[in-house]
Amino acid sequence: MRISELSLKAGVPLTAVKYYQREGLLPEGVRSAPNQVQYGDAHVRRVRLIRALLETGGLSVAATKNVIASLDADGESLAETFSVAQHAMSTPRTAESVPSDESRQRIVETATSHGWAFLPENPGITAAARALDGLRAIGFDPPQPYLAAYAVAASTVAAADLKALDTREGADAVAELMVVGTVLGDPLFAGLRRLAHEDATHTLRPTPDTK
Amino acid sequence: MRISELSLKAGVPLTAVKYYQREGLLPEGVRSAPNQVQYGDAHVRRVRLIRALLETGGLSVAATKNVIASLDADGESLAETFSVAQHAMSTPRTAESVPSDESRQRIVETATSHGWAFLPENPGITAAARALDGLRAIGFDPPQPYLAAYAVAASTVAAADLKALDTREGADAVAELMVVGTVLGDPLFAGLRRLAHEDATHTLRPTPDTK
Repeated sequence: MRISELSLKAGVPLTAVKYYQREGLLPEGVRSAPNQVQYGDAHVRRVRLIRALLETGGLSVAATKNVIASLDADGESLAETFSVAQHAMSTPRTAESVPSDESRQRIVETATSHGWAFLPENPGITAAARALDGLRAIGFDPPQPYLAAYAVAASTVAAADLKALDTREGADAVAELMVVGTVLGDPLFAGLRRLAHEDATHTLRPTPDTK
Repeated sequence: MRISELSLKAGVPLTAVKYYQREGLLPEGVRSAPNQVQYGDAHVRRVRLIRALLETGGLSVAATKNVIASLDADGESLAETFSVAQHAMSTPRTAESVPSDESRQRIVETATSHGWAFLPENPGITAAARALDGLRAIGFDPPQPYLAAYAVAASTVAAADLKALDTREGADAVAELMVVGTVLGDPLFAGLRRLAHEDATHTLRPTPDTK
């Protein structure tokens, strides 16, 4: 197909496709005539993946290049590519506070006690530990059952996320859902949590006990 | 106690406490001498709640005033105050896309099938539906078991959140945890989800099936 059809099929504007190419993110097509280049389905998948990384994932062009290089590298598994994408997506764009060692430790303990295997540089540790610091700052030091409930819920969601990857054909499509699902799973869960909260508050005592 | 001690006890800078007072968020203390005003523990709790609403919740001064007025109104339950806070916190500060009716419908159906009672204006519907639209845009239309897993996880977390409120003494302290917990529960969960993801990817097939 020509580049205009590639744009149409991927659902990405032609200007964006040309931009990806100029930035070295999208491989050249095959020249079939002096003034004609042909693209295949692999290009369609790649264009959509690039868009997912740049737009949904909020990655820089350089970080997107790294993720794609990891995906194309021989011998690198999808799990390794996912790790590269996870780290790139979590890179703070503004300086954020460093969580306390104590909160980091509690998050690591919570995860370890659920039998999870992960590297100490997983960006989730920092994110969760920072939130824990915020809760402790208002005098709420979450008891173990509270953190365990969050971990059980995270396991439930992660299992569903992983299962969803089976519906995808091809490494690019799997990687695309890994990235988009990682980013959008957060607001999907947060939205449902708001609904569950409203439902749960119906059981709250009707009047405040003190003012 | 004097205002300087109030600041110290609440862990909020004196300039901030004075600002809250000037904005009409914090009630006056009791004048005990021509040049001396006394504050009580209720003021300490209130200062911390205001800070939680303004800083963690990201509310405007006007929205903070509404939440506090709701908390102080006779006959209004904590559940009602929570609803006011939830809505204020979810008010988009930038224009965001309106989700499709179909995605809204699917979120409502998912929540309803879990027996949740909620109002149609709960801001969680929009947040979750918008995420669902994003997933569908990359050709992943989540099957019912996927959304059900998210809903089950949200129930688990909401139950833990609700139980945590029992550890708080006084309506201001409960409201403070409601707001801070709503906001910080999101990154706490997201961080643990990243760790669960890394663990889950260990079971992924080692090499991509297609390139």
